[in-house]
Amino acid sequence: MNGRSRARALGVLPGPLPTGPLNAITDVAGVLVGHTTIDDGADLHTGVTAIVPATVRALPAAVHTGNGYGKLVGSTQVDELGVLESPIVLTGTLSVFRAADAVLTYLMGLHPGELSFNPLVGETNDGFLSDIRRRPITERHVLDALEGAHGGLPAEGCVGAGTGTTALGYKAGIGTSSRRLDAGGGPVTVGALVQANFGGTLTVRGVPMPVEELVPGAGRVEPPGNSCVIVVATDAPLDARQLGRLARRAIFAMGRVGASYSHGSGDYAIAFSTADPAPALPDAVLSPVFAAVMDAVEEALLNSLFMATTTTGVEGHTSHAVPYDRL
Amino acid sequence: MNGRSRARALGVLPGPLPTGPLNAITDVAGVLVGHTTIDDGADLHTGVTAIVPATVRALPAAVHTGNGYGKLVGSTQVDELGVLESPIVLTGTLSVFRAADAVLTYLMGLHPGELSFNPLVGETNDGFLSDIRRRPITERHVLDALEGAHGGLPAEGCVGAGTGTTALGYKAGIGTSSRRLDAGGGPVTVGALVQANFGGTLTVRGVPMPVEELVPGAGRVEPPGNSCVIVVATDAPLDARQLGRLARRAIFAMGRVGASYSHGSGDYAIAFSTADPAPALPDAVLSPVFAAVMDAVEEALLNSLFMATTTTGVEGHTSHAVPYDRL
Amino acid sequence: MNGRSRARALGVLPGPLPTGPLNAITDVAGVLVGHTTIDDGADLHTGVTAIVPATVRALPAAVHTGNGYGKLVGSTQVDELGVLESPIVLTGTLSVFRAADAVLTYLMGLHPGELSFNPLVGETNDGFLSDIRRRPITERHVLDALEGAHGGLPAEGCVGAGTGTTALGYKAGIGTSSRRLDAGGGPVTVGALVQANFGGTLTVRGVPMPVEELVPGAGRVEPPGNSCVIVVATDAPLDARQLGRLARRAIFAMGRVGASYSHGSGDYAIAFSTADPAPALPDAVLSPVFAAVMDAVEEALLNSLFMATTTTGVEGHTSHAVPYDRL
Amino acid sequence: MNGRSRARALGVLPGPLPTGPLNAITDVAGVLVGHTTIDDGADLHTGVTAIVPATVRALPAAVHTGNGYGKLVGSTQVDELGVLESPIVLTGTLSVFRAADAVLTYLMGLHPGELSFNPLVGETNDGFLSDIRRRPITERHVLDALEGAHGGLPAEGCVGAGTGTTALGYKAGIGTSSRRLDAGGGPVTVGALVQANFGGTLTVRGVPMPVEELVPGAGRVEPPGNSCVIVVATDAPLDARQLGRLARRAIFAMGRVGASYSHGSGDYAIAFSTADPAPALPDAVLSPVFAAVMDAVEEALLNSLFMATTTTGVEGHTSHAVPYDRL
Repeated sequence: MNGRSRARALGVLPGPLPTGPLNAITDVAGVLVGHTTIDDGADLHTGVTAIVPATVRALPAAVHTGNGYGKLVGSTQVDELGVLESPIVLTGTLSVFRAADAVLTYLMGLHPGELSFNPLVGETNDGFLSDIRRRPITERHVLDALEGAHGGLPAEGCVGAGTGTTALGYKAGIGTSSRRLDAGGGPVTVGALVQANFGGTLTVRGVPMPVEELVPGAGRVEPPGNSCVIVVATDAPLDARQLGRLARRAIFAMGRVGASYSHGSGDYAIAFSTADPAPALPDAVLSPVFAAVMDAVEEALLNSLFMATTTTGVEGHTSHAVPYDRL
Repeated sequence: MNGRSRARALGVLPGPLPTGPLNAITDVAGVLVGHTTIDDGADLHTGVTAIVPATVRALPAAVHTGNGYGKLVGSTQVDELGVLESPIVLTGTLSVFRAADAVLTYLMGLHPGELSFNPLVGETNDGFLSDIRRRPITERHVLDALEGAHGGLPAEGCVGAGTGTTALGYKAGIGTSSRRLDAGGGPVTVGALVQANFGGTLTVRGVPMPVEELVPGAGRVEPPGNSCVIVVATDAPLDARQLGRLARRAIFAMGRVGASYSHGSGDYAIAFSTADPAPALPDAVLSPVFAAVMDAVEEALLNSLFMATTTTGVEGHTSHAVPYDRL
Repeated sequence: MNGRSRARALGVLPGPLPTGPLNAITDVAGVLVGHTTIDDGADLHTGVTAIVPATVRALPAAVHTGNGYGKLVGSTQVDELGVLESPIVLTGTLSVFRAADAVLTYLMGLHPGELSFNPLVGETNDGFLSDIRRRPITERHVLDALEGAHGGLPAEGCVGAGTGTTALGYKAGIGTSSRRLDAGGGPVTVGALVQANFGGTLTVRGVPMPVEELVPGAGRVEPPGNSCVIVVATDAPLDARQLGRLARRAIFAMGRVGASYSHGSGDYAIAFSTADPAPALPDAVLSPVFAAVMDAVEEALLNSLFMATTTTGVEGHTSHAVPYDRL
Repeated sequence: MNGRSRARALGVLPGPLPTGPLNAITDVAGVLVGHTTIDDGADLHTGVTAIVPATVRALPAAVHTGNGYGKLVGSTQVDELGVLESPIVLTGTLSVFRAADAVLTYLMGLHPGELSFNPLVGETNDGFLSDIRRRPITERHVLDALEGAHGGLPAEGCVGAGTGTTALGYKAGIGTSSRRLDAGGGPVTVGALVQANFGGTLTVRGVPMPVEELVPGAGRVEPPGNSCVIVVATDAPLDARQLGRLARRAIFAMGRVGASYSHGSGDYAIAFSTADPAPALPDAVLSPVFAAVMDAVEEALLNSLFMATTTTGVEGHTSHAVPYDRL
């Protein structure tokens, strides 16, 4: 262990709802997560994170664009058909197309006779710490993340697609969380996984924690072209339109930790359901589900920060871990 | 005076930017505000608020729907043409069409030969305190608000379209605020005016202030079909697409005061510019403008609450003013 | 009878699919249509058309905006919730808010305890033939159309909301048509009803029929601010997203009869299903349904023209009926 | 020459407006086109087409999705920022990500210090004639198309990204056309280039020309997952919102040649302007520009068919050229 703690262990518990057993997106049955981490200790700090539903051909799904300064691959077909037809892969900006091509390889392997696939691949610009112009992600890296995806608690912080990301002035990365509740007469699990790489001032339980005040000598790091990609999974029976409503709340939750929603941030949320949407829950019972989404995303964002470690990368750029002593 | 104070007077100052001289949407040159308040001390607590630009035929404008459970009149034409062609009027849900028809009367008076107009009229459900099924708004009420619109600091709290609204558990109403900054090499003013009527837990500078804890005997008031309509005005030269980006940030700012973004809330933001958008500011300079929008909306929302007074209305329903002693 | 004929009787049969028994939107079980016609033989040529599903509280529905120069009331809530919660009413532009208010009266009568309703009311500018600034539509006119709605073949041409409309250079009005097909293993009926009032050159089976060539002395009539509102009903089990796909095809079908899709036209399509959408048909079987929509809309548009009669209205404006001899 | 003729040479002249000197998208000053054609005479019939504006960093632009069954890369950032930041590249479905990655290579070469780019790459499924699972497009193919882009009349028919496409039952490919008109007081050129690969029944000047009737022994070819990608260029000063209006008309024009707008077709239009949009033309003068777009797209689609030649590809599939004798 690197001595880092999740938000909950530090006493930060967004909202009143209980978490799932892992407090992770993998609490949604059948959802697996895999990481490939590329960290050469020098110029490369990047990677791949894959969110792999057990079935990936036609899960109800929606994408919401909070701020479209980003290159999310696959969104228009999700908009049209309302389904997720591939695992979701996250990576660094200039590697996004190579990653998408690798997802094709993966899907072609699964479906030998088919001629059309819609990979859903998000990205964020990890160029502050990693030499992204080298486009270091290979097909093998992506296949490793996909094939190595597993249940259990996913690694957080500086792993996979979060290896080189920074958020709210600090080193960030991947984070995850979950919530359980009853909705529409049955139990529902909501899980979130985030790739955090966006501007603003870290705010924990309403208290701003500016890096320039908390870390001696640290300057504010706010690279242009940053992003936040949020994946929400649920076992609630919801159709694509309703999942779009969840996805919007995922973007809203960014504000709780201090997001500035700046011009250059590609803020996207993807929501999918592992359940048959026929019949879907009525919209009138969704408010508690929305609350669960926002709480899980808030905690996932905090986990992405609290689990990350100070990192020095390309051109000597350093991004500092959040210090705990001020929590 | 009713002894109520604006947020700033209570020491709550969202963000680092200075306000305009009035700290109001009317700091944007040429923007006027008028209210008609209907309060019979019994079953009727409703009204009309008009935001009247000096020129109302073709200002660059955009509407953003945060949650479309609402009856905003005129949005599709704003989407298509990117212009505001009428004053903006706010009122209660079941009076929205009568108000829109009154805006037609107003516009037909201004433009005798014309055959087509696009009133932009927002609404929120003030049915917790007001007997909305009586549809009490008349054409005269709307014309009074329009014709009586003036510069200076608009009344806040329980006035106009905020007479009967509640938000975050407390009595709310109309609030306004503004910010000044430099963007793209010149001074810019951003103003916001809100009609606050939505659920969640009031949060001030990150501290939750649940009504059930702060007001002895008070229950949580969260009527179905509530809403928040936010109007953002600026003198920055921005085109409709850019104003849409501002409008999205206005919705994001609701989270800062504790909005739950629930299913039944019609959360809309309207943004317009009083400047010629040719040439518009480059998008790359907009992040500080976005920040100004969010700060102004946050403060306007707080003002809508802090300036409101405890109100008892239809069926004896009571909504309590925010107590200051815990700030 | 006025001696006018439907397209089919004139040998114009768009597409290979059979029609329903009435060749009308009322072939979709439970869908009723009512008209109120206002024609004073002089300055007023307008009216109301109501499309009334047997159940109007939560039918899956979608709105598509082909060109948003129009004042369609109620669209954002349909977008958000994916349901139709009221009858659909069509009327003239400047009466749209009075009509929407009358629909409130109707819905409040049906649902005594409720405080929120979402009327869906379309409009078109019939100001070329009717003195729209008089806003002649009263609540009674709207209630008459709603309460008088019935099954059977709806009147077409110069009736209801089509009394004063013109399209493609000629007098137009209301038209309807339907198609039957098998989709997803079961029988499906698709019905369309149009309020036609748009520019272009009438084209029948690919042959242009310019009014200036076919009607001696007639000039081209293309009023600003015209529109086409298309209502599509089906008994196929489809969800809101899928109905949005149908609505887009309804707009595409306007091109078949020569629509110019001009700047000033408010072209909207509303699609709803009378069936339980759980489970919905798979998207992969929708192409024939799309074809049925386009054929039904094309024929409904032709019926709106072929059934209309030459009309002289306000300021002596005349709009000519399509002559049959050139078909 | 292969003995094929453009529509105009065959006497098919959509609309009254004159064409530019080349009747091609390259009539818009500064717009270049390059093709890489891959045709091994056996299993591979595919390629790359590049549309290269002289300046590719920030041209006003919009994307419209007619039917989102497609993998258009780059659309969300165009939606957000309203600008084209790369050449537009078209290719086959399973090669789209390799092509996008090659565009990155190209842009990184042009802009050595930059860390973020937004390639705009469209695709269509040419798998009926080409073995797309081989993903034959290499970086070199894409760079050749980009670097070889030139003015003058682009090759049409079975070239570049149209090498393996089929439309309306026949062999299709790339087509282009242009129109000139006055709008807003000055001359305007509108150009279109299409990658045609969609279903329906070829219709020329309103006359259906079904392949099964015109080509002895030919069956109807309608592969799943087909598409139409339409690129519209203009030198009219238009902003992104207005270009979105043009893009919608480009999709509408597909109907004129008999498009079925089927479920599985990825129908996208991209519109960009080479002019400074400050000030833009007023929307009120756009109707003739819309007409020009529709006429140019119609003729470009016809050219894509009329210039294509009978092709036999993978698994012995044959797609027949349109016979001229029935025109």
